[in-house]
Amino acid sequence: MVELRGDERIDYLLADHKRRIIQSQSVFAFSIDAVLLAHFTYLPFTRGKIMDLCTGNGVIPLFLSKRSKVPMTGVEIQERLYDMAVRNVKLNELEDQIKLMNDDLIGLAKKTGYHRYDLVTCNPPYFRTEDLDKRNNNEHLAIARHEIYCTLEDVLKSCSELVKSGGKVSLVHRPNRLTELIEIGRRFNLEPKRIQFVHPKRNKESNIVLVEYVRDGKPDLKIIPPIYIHDEDGNYTPEITKILYGEEGSRLHGSNSTKL
Amino acid sequence: MVELRGDERIDYLLADHKRRIIQSQSVFAFSIDAVLLAHFTYLPFTRGKIMDLCTGNGVIPLFLSKRSKVPMTGVEIQERLYDMAVRNVKLNELEDQIKLMNDDLIGLAKKTGYHRYDLVTCNPPYFRTEDLDKRNNNEHLAIARHEIYCTLEDVLKSCSELVKSGGKVSLVHRPNRLTELIEIGRRFNLEPKRIQFVHPKRNKESNIVLVEYVRDGKPDLKIIPPIYIHDEDGNYTPEITKILYGEEGSRLHGSNSTKL
Repeated sequence: MVELRGDERIDYLLADHKRRIIQSQSVFAFSIDAVLLAHFTYLPFTRGKIMDLCTGNGVIPLFLSKRSKVPMTGVEIQERLYDMAVRNVKLNELEDQIKLMNDDLIGLAKKTGYHRYDLVTCNPPYFRTEDLDKRNNNEHLAIARHEIYCTLEDVLKSCSELVKSGGKVSLVHRPNRLTELIEIGRRFNLEPKRIQFVHPKRNKESNIVLVEYVRDGKPDLKIIPPIYIHDEDGNYTPEITKILYGEEGSRLHGSNSTKL
Repeated sequence: MVELRGDERIDYLLADHKRRIIQSQSVFAFSIDAVLLAHFTYLPFTRGKIMDLCTGNGVIPLFLSKRSKVPMTGVEIQERLYDMAVRNVKLNELEDQIKLMNDDLIGLAKKTGYHRYDLVTCNPPYFRTEDLDKRNNNEHLAIARHEIYCTLEDVLKSCSELVKSGGKVSLVHRPNRLTELIEIGRRFNLEPKRIQFVHPKRNKESNIVLVEYVRDGKPDLKIIPPIYIHDEDGNYTPEITKILYGEEGSRLHGSNSTKL
């Protein structure tokens, strides 16, 4: 048994009725961005090591553990969220596969060792601190969403220090930061190799970008086919339904799925 | 009357039965990329000046003259293509609007003046010279397709020197050069503001990218909805049919259109 705190609840991890996840609207609840990152990323299956930065309540390692047996480490700077992630790993009996650290990603490689990971994933804060609305000041959400404890530069520097040469780094971010994602990545020897844009609808601008880098990779970027979240009627498209709920979920949930 | 040389022919400019264009398979024939660039670009309508670099047979100014009354200058380094462009302007009686220069884009602003243009367009050579197949050596096509006389850096530097502060630069290129399009552009104070990816089909990687920069612009990139060229059956999609042939063309041509 794990304890619940404050307004926490236990949800199923989408259509996965084996995995459950503790969430909280006031502290941390995962978004479709995390699902898209877990779906997009390359994943070592049986050999190697994975590091997930800004892990929050551990949602990315929970998703990845469905598809991979390799050891994973989730790092979260907020003690309240780290504690939620620890309970999530326990709730799913994944203590042997998923370790958690309550730590700062800045300078992390000094503690874990440089260039030890085959894959580093991260769903970082998207917004600059100057965009922070101080009147609406929920500390946990503000830290997860705004660059209060780490900038995109800090994130990419840390990813670069943690990943092996030839290893991969997968990030989800906002397309208006694409120039920085490319420029800063390359400055830290992370070569963008695969990019996918996500659009809310067929005729809307992209609002989510997924980027996969290879450390010390040769320049050769591919823009893979985009994803559309909703159809013209505002229902999930078949492709996103499949990503969220799997083949079976597509049949069971269809357009009546709970919206993330 | 204009003269035709070698294997030249006169085509209609797609569905435009007012405009005609001299082309040649062995020297220069316009591609769908030029149509996409002309469709994508911002365009001053009544005030301002436009420069088109790597103009070839003048296809971009011919397309843009359908939508804008402002003066345009096309620059082409190959005398044989410049000559074709001159005859195309004459053929369409556009001498008052479109001027042509047989010149190198490198250092061009020294002759025309720095920062005089509201818009600079360019469909540059896409391929590095190391990819040049020397056995298949058609000089005119090789120069148009490979970075023999100018690199992407030369192109962006020249665009930056020609365009006004706050003016726009629109380019068509290959997505595997996107990192350079962003990095080199920014080095020359060209901020990428609007990007559109073109995919040959819904589930294929992008093979064409359209980029619009603003000189001295503030970072704020938008990824607009992508374009698909063919549907699953290999026919033009309705959107590309409309771009190629217009509303009326969509009805007249449908899936039996000549393929570019």
